[in-house]
Amino acid sequence: MIYLDHNATTPPAAAVVAAMLSVLTDTWANASSQHGPGQASKRVLSQARVSVARVLGCKPVEVIFTSGATEANHLAVRGLLAASPPERQRVVFSRVEHAGQLRLARALAQSGVEVDLIPVLGDGRLDLDAAAALMGPDVALVSLMAANNETGVLMPVAEVAALAHATGALLLVDATQLIGKLPFHFADCGADAVSLSAHKFHGPKGIGALLLRHGLPCTAQTPGSQERGRRGGTENLPGIVGLATALELLGDVGAEATRQTGLRDALEAGLTRALPKTHIWCQQVARLPGTSYLRFGQLSVDVVLQRLERLGIAASSGAACSAGGTTPSHVLTAMGVPADQALATVRFSLGQTTTRDDINKLLSTLPPLLQPLLREEALAPTLVTSCTSLPPEAAPLAWGGPAQRGSPLLKAHL
Amino acid sequence: MIYLDHNATTPPAAAVVAAMLSVLTDTWANASSQHGPGQASKRVLSQARVSVARVLGCKPVEVIFTSGATEANHLAVRGLLAASPPERQRVVFSRVEHAGQLRLARALAQSGVEVDLIPVLGDGRLDLDAAAALMGPDVALVSLMAANNETGVLMPVAEVAALAHATGALLLVDATQLIGKLPFHFADCGADAVSLSAHKFHGPKGIGALLLRHGLPCTAQTPGSQERGRRGGTENLPGIVGLATALELLGDVGAEATRQTGLRDALEAGLTRALPKTHIWCQQVARLPGTSYLRFGQLSVDVVLQRLERLGIAASSGAACSAGGTTPSHVLTAMGVPADQALATVRFSLGQTTTRDDINKLLSTLPPLLQPLLREEALAPTLVTSCTSLPPEAAPLAWGGPAQRGSPLLKAHL
Repeated sequence: MIYLDHNATTPPAAAVVAAMLSVLTDTWANASSQHGPGQASKRVLSQARVSVARVLGCKPVEVIFTSGATEANHLAVRGLLAASPPERQRVVFSRVEHAGQLRLARALAQSGVEVDLIPVLGDGRLDLDAAAALMGPDVALVSLMAANNETGVLMPVAEVAALAHATGALLLVDATQLIGKLPFHFADCGADAVSLSAHKFHGPKGIGALLLRHGLPCTAQTPGSQERGRRGGTENLPGIVGLATALELLGDVGAEATRQTGLRDALEAGLTRALPKTHIWCQQVARLPGTSYLRFGQLSVDVVLQRLERLGIAASSGAACSAGGTTPSHVLTAMGVPADQALATVRFSLGQTTTRDDINKLLSTLPPLLQPLLREEALAPTLVTSCTSLPPEAAPLAWGGPAQRGSPLLKAHL
Repeated sequence: MIYLDHNATTPPAAAVVAAMLSVLTDTWANASSQHGPGQASKRVLSQARVSVARVLGCKPVEVIFTSGATEANHLAVRGLLAASPPERQRVVFSRVEHAGQLRLARALAQSGVEVDLIPVLGDGRLDLDAAAALMGPDVALVSLMAANNETGVLMPVAEVAALAHATGALLLVDATQLIGKLPFHFADCGADAVSLSAHKFHGPKGIGALLLRHGLPCTAQTPGSQERGRRGGTENLPGIVGLATALELLGDVGAEATRQTGLRDALEAGLTRALPKTHIWCQQVARLPGTSYLRFGQLSVDVVLQRLERLGIAASSGAACSAGGTTPSHVLTAMGVPADQALATVRFSLGQTTTRDDINKLLSTLPPLLQPLLREEALAPTLVTSCTSLPPEAAPLAWGGPAQRGSPLLKAHL
């Protein structure tokens, strides 16, 4: 199989599995226990925390281990909001945050919290003017991903940090897609909190972290004595050691990024050459090295993915198309892309395991399968496209409207 | 080492580690992905859910995988409360719930939720009359553990279920300590929700579940598309398969309980014979098979644990003595036990790995080390006891007062 879905998850590295195996068999005592085995677990936990902090450019005390980025994001948003003063209770999210984060935004709005969404431009970049207009002394927190999981577009973290901090707001950066793909340093990135998930960089599933600037008050969401009272529950030591090992293995992230960028560019050039109707989203803006988000004319993503499957190539629709391809990507929708084009979009996400041979094989096998379909489409465009209706659950992700606080359109969609 | 701290955690079974290893190396694709490898992960996830449901006596749809019991408890309490009508917003906890759960109770109370605590009797059993007095049409939820982690006392789940349901309230049972130690069947236990953690029954850390009666509305706390929208975040498939494997391995829980009860009773009889000043808490009431909670005169638990450590025996103070033995157990305090006796209490928790030889070795080696200390204590009782002061953070766990709704004493402690 040629696996080109690294933005969904990555295979755990052999050294990660070995490190976890060692903890599962030898260091299984509870790290909160006072006896010898418990203290041995506590030392392993402490070493892992130091290691994570070193690789990510933060202090050990700033690392809160969680069950993944979703929990970390939730802890940051709810925890920082709860610790903010009553006059600062508005939360601003980018409109292209991960679908789970936008569900949280909706839950907050439904519970009476004032929530605003920063739009993106047609090329996928954040609308910085709109972001600036949404800041204010009542904003507790801005939630912005470092890089979009679908388009790969890099978000202006430093600029938004400056905007947020100028009005006294905090910045949470969901770096789930960036860490492991591009160099990252917590202390230098401008964010007050950063979330991450190990399985996106060859670590195990079920473990992640929130990096939280030292001294920043954040109310625990699952209370308990662990993680300095910031996250309760017996520490997942095999997972934590797996996460730390995966980070240590990253090595020269910049060099690997250059390699993946070369492969991605070769993929895009080859596809465009063989299939002139190929349209690549966000190609002109700064993106993650291995992410390519594109459509072949209006060919339904289901049709394309089925052909890829036949070739033994694993890729993805970027959107939550799990229910059968009926929901257009909220990211493309936010960019103003019509539903039929969104439903024709496929994501290739390259990774450490991707080789030049993988790309060559794709380029030699996929175009011959798609060319007849594209010819057919040119004759009868509706035959090979998929459904375009929006089910009710898509509506919250389709929040729209101008970048105005309390816009009636936004409110109507909540 | 002789490990007698199974209530803190248990060693993952070899078959559990092997099953996790298989998932980590072969079934690492994201279970939400639509491609072949993703669908293979989804099938493994589905099989694990069916397996868990079969062992625990529930429907597969009633299983929500979480990062552990702490998260499951949190999801149940906050999620069921949020889904309850406005006239039903009171929550009742037993006073001897796990410390993390009482932190949650305190957080709720601080945010304005009306919270009441059910006291226990001097012998560790729940005060059922007090429980009955605390019920009412405004109660959304009662939170009661199936068995206490310190004393091992079994709680009257069926009786409290009847009391709660008679007034339309729901019952959450934290079965973290019971599952794997005594037979359990969700559909028959009377609870509407049950929380559990895999590492307490030879599964891995970082994975647990909430069993939630089918159709019961429960607001997701970490929103996302996974677990039918009830718990977001990429599924921790290695952990889930580890949990399912651990449950499948349990076998005849009743027979193992009988074996452990025999060992525990032999331990207690032997200690009482060799050290007449041994006092065993809750010995006359129904307890978990392997749990023994006792004190040797007034010997400080730190002193006892240090002698055990010297013998290569891992045991525990039942309390949150992690900061150096200054906090008396909130469970013993709730039973009316004075602080100096609470700070003298040690917990032995036997498990599947415990043998008759382990018990014999303890009985032949520990008494000779403690006898001189007990003689010394008889001459100068304060010499070998530990500190008795309560730090400020202990106060919330010392909630007291009569079992009256909105008792001033309870309110004063919040």
